[in-house]
Amino acid sequence: MREALVLLSGGMDSATALALSLRNYGNRSDAVEAVSFNYGQRHARELEAAESIAAHYKVRHTILDLRGASLAFEGSALTGKGEVPEGHYQDASMKKTVVPNRNMIMLSLAVGLAISREMNSVVYGAHAGDHEIYPDCRPDFLVALQVAVSLGNYRPLSILAPFIDKSKMEIARMGFDVNVPFDMTWSCYKGQDIHCGVCGTCVERREAFELAKVPDPTFYDGDYQIDILDEQNRSYNRDIANSLKQHNP
Amino acid sequence: MREALVLLSGGMDSATALALSLRNYGNRSDAVEAVSFNYGQRHARELEAAESIAAHYKVRHTILDLRGASLAFEGSALTGKGEVPEGHYQDASMKKTVVPNRNMIMLSLAVGLAISREMNSVVYGAHAGDHEIYPDCRPDFLVALQVAVSLGNYRPLSILAPFIDKSKMEIARMGFDVNVPFDMTWSCYKGQDIHCGVCGTCVERREAFELAKVPDPTFYDGDYQIDILDEQNRSYNRDIANSLKQHNP
Repeated sequence: MREALVLLSGGMDSATALALSLRNYGNRSDAVEAVSFNYGQRHARELEAAESIAAHYKVRHTILDLRGASLAFEGSALTGKGEVPEGHYQDASMKKTVVPNRNMIMLSLAVGLAISREMNSVVYGAHAGDHEIYPDCRPDFLVALQVAVSLGNYRPLSILAPFIDKSKMEIARMGFDVNVPFDMTWSCYKGQDIHCGVCGTCVERREAFELAKVPDPTFYDGDYQIDILDEQNRSYNRDIANSLKQHNP
Repeated sequence: MREALVLLSGGMDSATALALSLRNYGNRSDAVEAVSFNYGQRHARELEAAESIAAHYKVRHTILDLRGASLAFEGSALTGKGEVPEGHYQDASMKKTVVPNRNMIMLSLAVGLAISREMNSVVYGAHAGDHEIYPDCRPDFLVALQVAVSLGNYRPLSILAPFIDKSKMEIARMGFDVNVPFDMTWSCYKGQDIHCGVCGTCVERREAFELAKVPDPTFYDGDYQIDILDEQNRSYNRDIANSLKQHNP
């Protein structure tokens, strides 16, 4: 039976949501599917990450291409206007990365897809650290959206947000415990070949691994030290980064 | 100042919503915009109608192309599966025309566009006659969606459904009173060159004009009589229909 459709951005949160959903349904890869969105984000690199992760877990993966509707995604640094800001999610500048109504748009489409495929739930990796800046990651928003989904459709469908009260550090730990291939995940907003290490989502990613005391397999650009990685891992990652740079000069 | 973004399907309800919105804002065509959606509906003919109506009112018109996300619109007779049913909205067969979560998807995108453009409201022509069959046209759905939109975005935005407690007959009368170019509007689900006259939305359209005692400028296929049209109009419409048939045999 088809159970859950997981919104898979290609980042570490949604990859962990996918891994835990699979575990919930006895690792039956026919019970779980993944969906990703191409909305013209600068960091379309994350879509390749999503594909790799879905292939790793052998789940059906649908990419919905919204580039024909790109005008609905204007007004954000993530979709072309202005510089991608650096720093923590708490910083005022980070509001530039808000894409108006993005999660409602993606959840609405995921709900349509899930109902067409006769699935029972849509899973979405919003977490407590997102609340500060993204209003469409907050629990009250999700409750209202669930009510609207229930009233607006004949088929019952649950929107599940298993990390809504969890920190990204806790997600890193949970993901590590179930062997999420974090090396396949992509966070950086800037969409270069390697993680920049300084944009909002890179900062959150680095900190999550550090606080969770979980090995961070990411190579970040610049001088950022990855203290808990041993020298072997670090040089391996650097080789990959250099190889990428050679292929995409 | 930009005020209202009107969801313009190309049908008589949304055309009337556009006309009334313009009147609300002193007929300033810079205050009102229209948005339409190409989701791979069989009756894409309605998009041409929407373009004509927007041009008639001289408002900016955006068509968001969702065909790259067509998998999210499966499972409806309107998007390819099975025959388009005939009869009244009350008939059980009419549920085949429900596109899962369609209005939430379209409203979500319209909200994103409206916020990017710094508009204050999204206007949507759902009416009381839609309630029977389309759960995402009911007042309680709209209330929940408004709550989700308010919680999920920084910018305040209202979702207005001016016809939510009106019948289609009342819309026909209101539209007639403000000179809506009903001859430009398109309803038929089947997407042929002329209105079929027997699908759910054609039946509702014909009845609305008849009950409102408003001239129906539509030529319907087959034997359907349009009693309140004078013979001149009828032959004019027949000429157009024949000419269309010749050009698109």
